[in-house]
Amino acid sequence: MGIFQRFARLPLKSTYIWSLCPQYSTDLTAVDRALIVRSSQLIQHRCVHSRVMGASPGNPGAAPPRLPFSRVTREDLAFFRTLLPGRTITDPDLLKSSNVDWLKTVEGNSEVLLRPKTTEEVSQILRHCNERNLAVCPQGGNTGLVGGSVPVFDEIILSTSLMNQVITFDNISGILTCQAGCVLENLSNYLEERDFIMPLDLGAKGSCHIGGNVSTNAGGLRLLRYGSLRGTVLGLEVVLADGRILNCLATLRKDNTGYDLKQLFIGSEGTLGVITAVSILCPRKPKAVNVAFLGCSSFQQLLETFQCCRGMLGEILSAFEFFDASCMSLLEKHLKLTNPITESPFYIVIETAGSNATHDEEKLHKFLEEVMTSSLVTDGTVATEATKIKALWSLRERVTEALTHEGYTYKYDISLPVEKIYDLVQDMRGHLGDMAKNVVGYGHVGMSSEPSTGPDYILCISIANNIKLSQ
Amino acid sequence: MGIFQRFARLPLKSTYIWSLCPQYSTDLTAVDRALIVRSSQLIQHRCVHSRVMGASPGNPGAAPPRLPFSRVTREDLAFFRTLLPGRTITDPDLLKSSNVDWLKTVEGNSEVLLRPKTTEEVSQILRHCNERNLAVCPQGGNTGLVGGSVPVFDEIILSTSLMNQVITFDNISGILTCQAGCVLENLSNYLEERDFIMPLDLGAKGSCHIGGNVSTNAGGLRLLRYGSLRGTVLGLEVVLADGRILNCLATLRKDNTGYDLKQLFIGSEGTLGVITAVSILCPRKPKAVNVAFLGCSSFQQLLETFQCCRGMLGEILSAFEFFDASCMSLLEKHLKLTNPITESPFYIVIETAGSNATHDEEKLHKFLEEVMTSSLVTDGTVATEATKIKALWSLRERVTEALTHEGYTYKYDISLPVEKIYDLVQDMRGHLGDMAKNVVGYGHVGMSSEPSTGPDYILCISIANNIKLSQ
Repeated sequence: MGIFQRFARLPLKSTYIWSLCPQYSTDLTAVDRALIVRSSQLIQHRCVHSRVMGASPGNPGAAPPRLPFSRVTREDLAFFRTLLPGRTITDPDLLKSSNVDWLKTVEGNSEVLLRPKTTEEVSQILRHCNERNLAVCPQGGNTGLVGGSVPVFDEIILSTSLMNQVITFDNISGILTCQAGCVLENLSNYLEERDFIMPLDLGAKGSCHIGGNVSTNAGGLRLLRYGSLRGTVLGLEVVLADGRILNCLATLRKDNTGYDLKQLFIGSEGTLGVITAVSILCPRKPKAVNVAFLGCSSFQQLLETFQCCRGMLGEILSAFEFFDASCMSLLEKHLKLTNPITESPFYIVIETAGSNATHDEEKLHKFLEEVMTSSLVTDGTVATEATKIKALWSLRERVTEALTHEGYTYKYDISLPVEKIYDLVQDMRGHLGDMAKNVVGYGHVGMSSEPSTGPDYILCISIANNIKLSQ
Repeated sequence: MGIFQRFARLPLKSTYIWSLCPQYSTDLTAVDRALIVRSSQLIQHRCVHSRVMGASPGNPGAAPPRLPFSRVTREDLAFFRTLLPGRTITDPDLLKSSNVDWLKTVEGNSEVLLRPKTTEEVSQILRHCNERNLAVCPQGGNTGLVGGSVPVFDEIILSTSLMNQVITFDNISGILTCQAGCVLENLSNYLEERDFIMPLDLGAKGSCHIGGNVSTNAGGLRLLRYGSLRGTVLGLEVVLADGRILNCLATLRKDNTGYDLKQLFIGSEGTLGVITAVSILCPRKPKAVNVAFLGCSSFQQLLETFQCCRGMLGEILSAFEFFDASCMSLLEKHLKLTNPITESPFYIVIETAGSNATHDEEKLHKFLEEVMTSSLVTDGTVATEATKIKALWSLRERVTEALTHEGYTYKYDISLPVEKIYDLVQDMRGHLGDMAKNVVGYGHVGMSSEPSTGPDYILCISIANNIKLSQ
């Protein structure tokens, strides 16, 4: 398969340069093997602060060896400058922010940043790099929290930041087609004006690119209601590593013709090709939205609140998020945000979205009455007005930001049966002791495509440890 | 890629034997080409009643040439009989129903039907067939309406009908894992007892297999509410054409580790491997279900009713189906079903499913009041009781069955913008004149993963022409 054939030239997860044989003798087992190699290599990812982790060449934390890719020559630069005049960046100061990830955990040494505006330019860049055996690191908003968006060595950074145009929007079907570098929040604003919303939302919305969201199969805050990108992404345009353009930009809700090749590019993090355009099904803006912010005195009570919520809010439940008291302290300390309720060990953000404000409020009030009288919830506040909704949401959304003010953050997304998930945070606290400034837990509860009936799993809990630099 | 490497030995869509070179030099373009070849070859599919279509060897309707696969020998049969004692069928009478599709449109000449019970047996069958260069036709419930489930020539039929065991069900998460040959209705009954439902439902539920549903990426009646199988199928176990077993039976709601290989098998109709087990996320049984059966005097009014319905029923709308007056005549004539309302050119079945019976009924009644007073709808009836709901649903579900009583049926699933879709039926009527006994239209309206906000497309309209045999 050509789609796999050339990706040896593309860095995997932008951090590890894959070593599949170029003659493409690969079979399924080889791919499996490569994936395993990938995971183990990722553990060896070069850390900016590897000294903290006690890394040495033979230990985890050390960088994997650079593979025999070519070095960028003067001729290469001349080619890029002709192709992308003024958009071939080599100034080290300008390159710095693209070489470091948002959490400042990992850093590369790329000397060239390319900023194409069109699919054709991306195609020409990749064709050239493929012919010259130059490694490439595709980069969207560089908001990833797992070190996946920056180079490991001197890979050329291919940024989608200037590919930021909406191509078409159909305000009957709600189908948006846009370039991969569109910032999620800009798309949201564009749609809100037209009475639609994006089917995904995340804390990084102000910077992250839709192409990066799709490449990483981002879940985010609306997954509970609108399902995964595997369902809402209707089509993709992708440039393969040898420059060929694969157009799967279908805009049909159901398309069973041939193999659904676009699925291969969702979540494969640029390893199979660079996504250059996305078509996505956008839901209509809900008529009524409410947000409740609640406090719980134990994780067990939080889970019972979730169970109760699923039953009583049913199909209008659109988000159920939580964070712990340590997160709240950091929000107050570094971002000067105010806790709107009395202090609690755990906080919950619940959002409802529905078609009938009266029915929704009635359901919400019945639910709140139930959880207050049964003492599952200790305190709470409800918002129906946009500004207040935004303020409540920002508490949850800005936890990651607050953590960065404390120093280096290690963040893990973990899926476990719900009963056990918070034990991880407590065990980690015990394990790290005063090695860590903070060990906090926050995330989504019960991701499901069918809100009233989702499974009892927490699927994302971010255990963020701020390691003390002095250690 | 190994997954593609050997499928030259598997018939494509069970009707066309693919001719990709076995040395696997294929690249993406080759796959595209193959898909195109596939479509054109399908047009040449051998018809049972090719005389009706005036087929001749050089014309559409003629069979494609048989590719140089081996013939089944006595040694092969001995191997199968040792592997599957009593489950290697060679009696022509017993084979007959597996050689003909449900609509009796196409017929193969297979002389061997194998009925494995386990994945290991499927693996051994395929390994043997691969080594012996024997063509295989995987078959589920053989309920497909497009001739995809029967052999073209003498392919060995590999039936999943004895692979009918539920493996596990988690009544907290709603995750069901079962063998591929489980009949959809049996799974539905199994789940209903446990207060869950299957995320898909179709007219053929009494015979169709879950493996076949996944292989064909079946949409069905609940797609509007629970989304496509690409989201609800969490894992698959697949046997590749050379007998290797690929275990992707994950039961996580979100699994971003590695490539999502299972997506390749959803909708690829057995061409990449045989699905042997499925794990699927099942929604909890809704607390309140209502069905409304309405009559409309024009297709335009039907579309306006749909628009109104989406706005007023919002998140509780779980199905919106239609059929025309010609369908109703056939239901009355052949199945003795009774039209519960006054005669109309068009009929609509609307289903709501929600968490609060009072709210749902209030929404439904407001909607009905609106469409009756604005004369969008001429007559209607509502059911909340299970037996009556079933009776109303069977009108829509049994249209295809009613058509078969009139003779050979050609059925097309077509996606077009909503405004134009019914013109097709009318144009076809004009075009065929008295060549056709009936030209009818029926199907789903507005398939969407987000009920309140779906797009304005009809995505499936079955234009069924009963061609007169006398012509």
